[in-house]
Amino acid sequence: MSGVLRGLRYPRCIGTGVPKGSSNTQGTISTRWSSSFSDRSHSCGDLRPGHVGQSVRLSGWLQFVRMDKFLVLRDTHGQTQLIIPSDRRDLWGRIRELPLESTLSVQGQVLARPVDQINLKLDTGQVEVRVSELLASNPASSAIPFLNRGYHAAKEGLQMEYRYLALRTPALQHNLKVRSRMIMAMRQFLTAHDFVDIETPVLFRRTPGGAQEFVVPSRTPDKFYSLVQSPQQFKQLLMVGGLDRYFQIAKCFRDEGAKADRQPEFTQLDIELSFTNPDHIRRLVEQLIVHSWPEDKPRPSTPFLRLTHETCLKRYGSDKPDLRFEHQIRDLTRVFEGDELDFLAPSSEPRAVQAIVFHSDEAVKVKTVKELEAWIKPQYPSVIVSYFMVDSTGQVKNTLLKKCSSHVRERVAAELDLTGHAFGFLAIGPRASTLKALGKLRPELARLCLKLDPTEFKFLWVEEFPLFEPKENDPNHLESAHHPFTQPHPGDIELLTKNPLCVRGLHYDLVLNGSEIGGGSIRINDAKLQEHVLKDILGEDTSELQHLLDALSFGCPPHGGIAIGLDRLLAIVTNSKSIRDVIAFPKTAEGRDAMGDAPATISDEDKQRYHIRSVLPTKPNDEIDSGS
Amino acid sequence: MSGVLRGLRYPRCIGTGVPKGSSNTQGTISTRWSSSFSDRSHSCGDLRPGHVGQSVRLSGWLQFVRMDKFLVLRDTHGQTQLIIPSDRRDLWGRIRELPLESTLSVQGQVLARPVDQINLKLDTGQVEVRVSELLASNPASSAIPFLNRGYHAAKEGLQMEYRYLALRTPALQHNLKVRSRMIMAMRQFLTAHDFVDIETPVLFRRTPGGAQEFVVPSRTPDKFYSLVQSPQQFKQLLMVGGLDRYFQIAKCFRDEGAKADRQPEFTQLDIELSFTNPDHIRRLVEQLIVHSWPEDKPRPSTPFLRLTHETCLKRYGSDKPDLRFEHQIRDLTRVFEGDELDFLAPSSEPRAVQAIVFHSDEAVKVKTVKELEAWIKPQYPSVIVSYFMVDSTGQVKNTLLKKCSSHVRERVAAELDLTGHAFGFLAIGPRASTLKALGKLRPELARLCLKLDPTEFKFLWVEEFPLFEPKENDPNHLESAHHPFTQPHPGDIELLTKNPLCVRGLHYDLVLNGSEIGGGSIRINDAKLQEHVLKDILGEDTSELQHLLDALSFGCPPHGGIAIGLDRLLAIVTNSKSIRDVIAFPKTAEGRDAMGDAPATISDEDKQRYHIRSVLPTKPNDEIDSGS
Repeated sequence: MSGVLRGLRYPRCIGTGVPKGSSNTQGTISTRWSSSFSDRSHSCGDLRPGHVGQSVRLSGWLQFVRMDKFLVLRDTHGQTQLIIPSDRRDLWGRIRELPLESTLSVQGQVLARPVDQINLKLDTGQVEVRVSELLASNPASSAIPFLNRGYHAAKEGLQMEYRYLALRTPALQHNLKVRSRMIMAMRQFLTAHDFVDIETPVLFRRTPGGAQEFVVPSRTPDKFYSLVQSPQQFKQLLMVGGLDRYFQIAKCFRDEGAKADRQPEFTQLDIELSFTNPDHIRRLVEQLIVHSWPEDKPRPSTPFLRLTHETCLKRYGSDKPDLRFEHQIRDLTRVFEGDELDFLAPSSEPRAVQAIVFHSDEAVKVKTVKELEAWIKPQYPSVIVSYFMVDSTGQVKNTLLKKCSSHVRERVAAELDLTGHAFGFLAIGPRASTLKALGKLRPELARLCLKLDPTEFKFLWVEEFPLFEPKENDPNHLESAHHPFTQPHPGDIELLTKNPLCVRGLHYDLVLNGSEIGGGSIRINDAKLQEHVLKDILGEDTSELQHLLDALSFGCPPHGGIAIGLDRLLAIVTNSKSIRDVIAFPKTAEGRDAMGDAPATISDEDKQRYHIRSVLPTKPNDEIDSGS
Repeated sequence: MSGVLRGLRYPRCIGTGVPKGSSNTQGTISTRWSSSFSDRSHSCGDLRPGHVGQSVRLSGWLQFVRMDKFLVLRDTHGQTQLIIPSDRRDLWGRIRELPLESTLSVQGQVLARPVDQINLKLDTGQVEVRVSELLASNPASSAIPFLNRGYHAAKEGLQMEYRYLALRTPALQHNLKVRSRMIMAMRQFLTAHDFVDIETPVLFRRTPGGAQEFVVPSRTPDKFYSLVQSPQQFKQLLMVGGLDRYFQIAKCFRDEGAKADRQPEFTQLDIELSFTNPDHIRRLVEQLIVHSWPEDKPRPSTPFLRLTHETCLKRYGSDKPDLRFEHQIRDLTRVFEGDELDFLAPSSEPRAVQAIVFHSDEAVKVKTVKELEAWIKPQYPSVIVSYFMVDSTGQVKNTLLKKCSSHVRERVAAELDLTGHAFGFLAIGPRASTLKALGKLRPELARLCLKLDPTEFKFLWVEEFPLFEPKENDPNHLESAHHPFTQPHPGDIELLTKNPLCVRGLHYDLVLNGSEIGGGSIRINDAKLQEHVLKDILGEDTSELQHLLDALSFGCPPHGGIAIGLDRLLAIVTNSKSIRDVIAFPKTAEGRDAMGDAPATISDEDKQRYHIRSVLPTKPNDEIDSGS
């Protein structure tokens, strides 16, 4: 860690939201700030044997009632057992009327629990509070849709509809606290290194060539704002403006329709600095990640591994490989004779044979592997994908190898070490597609037979991406692999006009456990080069970016940066299944807010104010009657 | 300051962005982090006599060239003089070609300046750098629209169009750094007190009864998101969700049309906590403000002054009085006889006579005061407003008093101490309106004759606002004075049905130097009371808030919070004329982005995707041809 951060007053970043000192059960009284500015003397997670005898005031939710005298009171910091004295039937009468999940505030005295009732699993398990007074309460309706009681979780749909109830689960609260602390630690690191936190606009104009952006009608007829998909232009303009180093925890908006585990609004840590280079930026990000890493998880080791884009594809069939396991794709092309290939996969194009193999401790079900085969095949129609598996007799079962000479079968078995419970996939076809197909199967196979350590985090830098790629729907034209502001690799400038598809960009992706969590680049700071890329190579209308081209021409420093997707990063750090588990009020996969039922209809006045009319898509010339 | 923050590693909040230690010119070498991760050894503000002899690399903008050998290089940290050795005409030749505002990186050696060339006004004024190599440069076009050279500032329109050039001014960079540091200090204070930084959605549904919200068409026909005007609902739902204490630096959106010094997107510090009360929240905010206050300005004294809404109106004619000067409105009603009032301001309604007086050191121009009279009169047609002034002979000039008996004239002169260069205004009419008219004149009069200390900051809590007020356009119905979630004052619950206009709310406004910078309240946590207020008193359709009513019924703790407008606060702290001076990329008063020319037209595909069509407002049944 860099010297500037030594001696930091705040905890670096802790996983639970509870300072280490207070999770002991040894009777020391921890200093807590959770009860400042509150009508309580302690939180429900505070009390220890050292508090015995003290008069305390606690506030929280009624978690549990039993034996006509015990209550459990819960807040975000923990649970405390309350006891109603047997001579206070009046109190008991009032409390018995409160359904579970009611809120209440009580006054009472801390008692040591009888030895046989001590619960060391609970931080507060050595004490209980004898209630003398019920100070306030707000009853919960007994028609509450669900209780969070661990043993049965409510269906996801219900959790989204009553999100505020789902938020009462310790797991979600934990995730939000980790998020808050980790982002705060990032801020501390960056501000300590002279980065300035600068807010940039959300309402702006369309970015040409990027993701689909939401539009916002204005009071000027036929004029619309766009919600920014990222602060990319603004952060570059800040560098032109001489702000030197910028960061922002930026809310970004993309309308990607219904995509699993994407959100129409998401958050990224956005960084840009002047007079820098890729080495500096990698080092900055590595130090930043280590500094902000939750203390209860092993620190990632630095420097992070670096691989070129080409190597990633060749070894792992992916530009975001999961390196928690090393299993590489094996090129078996040279094992097969041309005749054999013609027989197995007749084609006039060059074919490659690739394989990936896993060795399982136990036999893997044929049915499961067949399902994977059926899942991958339609995604890569130009590739013959075929599973193989060593059966209980030691024989290799595979429909392709069956047709081959014993010589080939033996060489494949030797190359892949097909012993024990080995299984995997063979792929024959165009090289790039075979790699991609196996690359997609690789993490699925790992899930089948490897036990991945939930505290293992493997970071990877992927570099030397191509700067351009053929347009998906129009392969004779080019589009930017990332965005049109990426600086070409200095060694490839000559190729820009000659062979743009071979130009590498000064771009770097940050990959964690098989997910892309960040990406950045050195930007073009030469106005003429930027115009050449936009106009001549990409064929974009530069008028929409004239302000940026102007800016580059008025004294633009060399600069670069990165954006890190915080929702994804936090989901991985907290071992969550979905990014929805690290967002307080996420939208459904369809982009709906199930709690507030948004999007919703709006008033005719609003439509008139913004000079728009709704159009029914089924009958394009009819409008929904908007009352005008 | 609270104990938890003692020993904080980071500077509390400093005004200049430059640690104190480095602004000395005594030759000590400061430790700076501004050159980490950068292609430079030092910033342009770093070098001191202690560096003499060192080889350094600097990067920045060409600020100034003179005498065929000196350059001034500028970056965000300062300026350094470069000298080209006389035997390096080659270097000079290359540099001479660079227009001002080009960026360059140079290698060189630090020299002590000759004694007669030392400039102690500049942090780096004791040294210069002898350039040995020009490492890189990016020429600025000589057609640059303006240079920031202090002596002539570019017109505001040009500054907005080329905002990235305006951002090169030290004043704007200073403001953005103060903003970054002050907000960071707020975060430190809040996270140290167990507040969790939680992001809430921007895309949601309409809030009934609030400000005008922007709408965002969705891919579902005739369904729209609304951009949230504040996280109010979400922060309350987080309290229902048991998160206990929340904060967020929240981007908010309001479409208020063209209003001077408002922005369609703005930023607030949003805070909410459970089991609290107004005393706690006031204390929290006071400590927060003091903790985050820039170190180079005197700390505000706490506790802040508290006044009731009624007292504010009575004394200052405003619910956000500027208390840097005490000048109160004086009620002179009892000085005037009924006959006199009938003569001066005939009316069947009760009339009040109010006055405000200032004593100037020098004579104030009659013309200026007359202009104020002409400005205020049309705003309060029911009030007779009339300036008065003591002339050079000691006589009081006033058109109303002229018509009164000498007895009245003498009593008024005595009451108001009309001596020296006293001047001010008399107002006769309905009491509330006379107060408001004089309250509006009060800061204008202060501007005329008081020299306000730019480092004086007077905070004020205004409390006991009425919970409801008559609707502006429909006085027989009520609307919330702030918002419908405010808890009624416990002493006034009885009045809710009997006389709702007399019910005070548990609301508090935070006022600084005459501007409202924050407001908050204890919220209603009883579902039935909330429904009663919404449905029976305000006549709102509760279906749009059903999720909130549900939430209150499922165990909602007592809770409250505040929102502080950061743009306004920062503008005051930095003595800026406009909030645009503390925002990196502000919009014009009309809501336009002059740099990127937003809002703009969008494509027909976008309109089809979102099922909308533009309508020309002048001919409501015609649509702008959207190509379909």
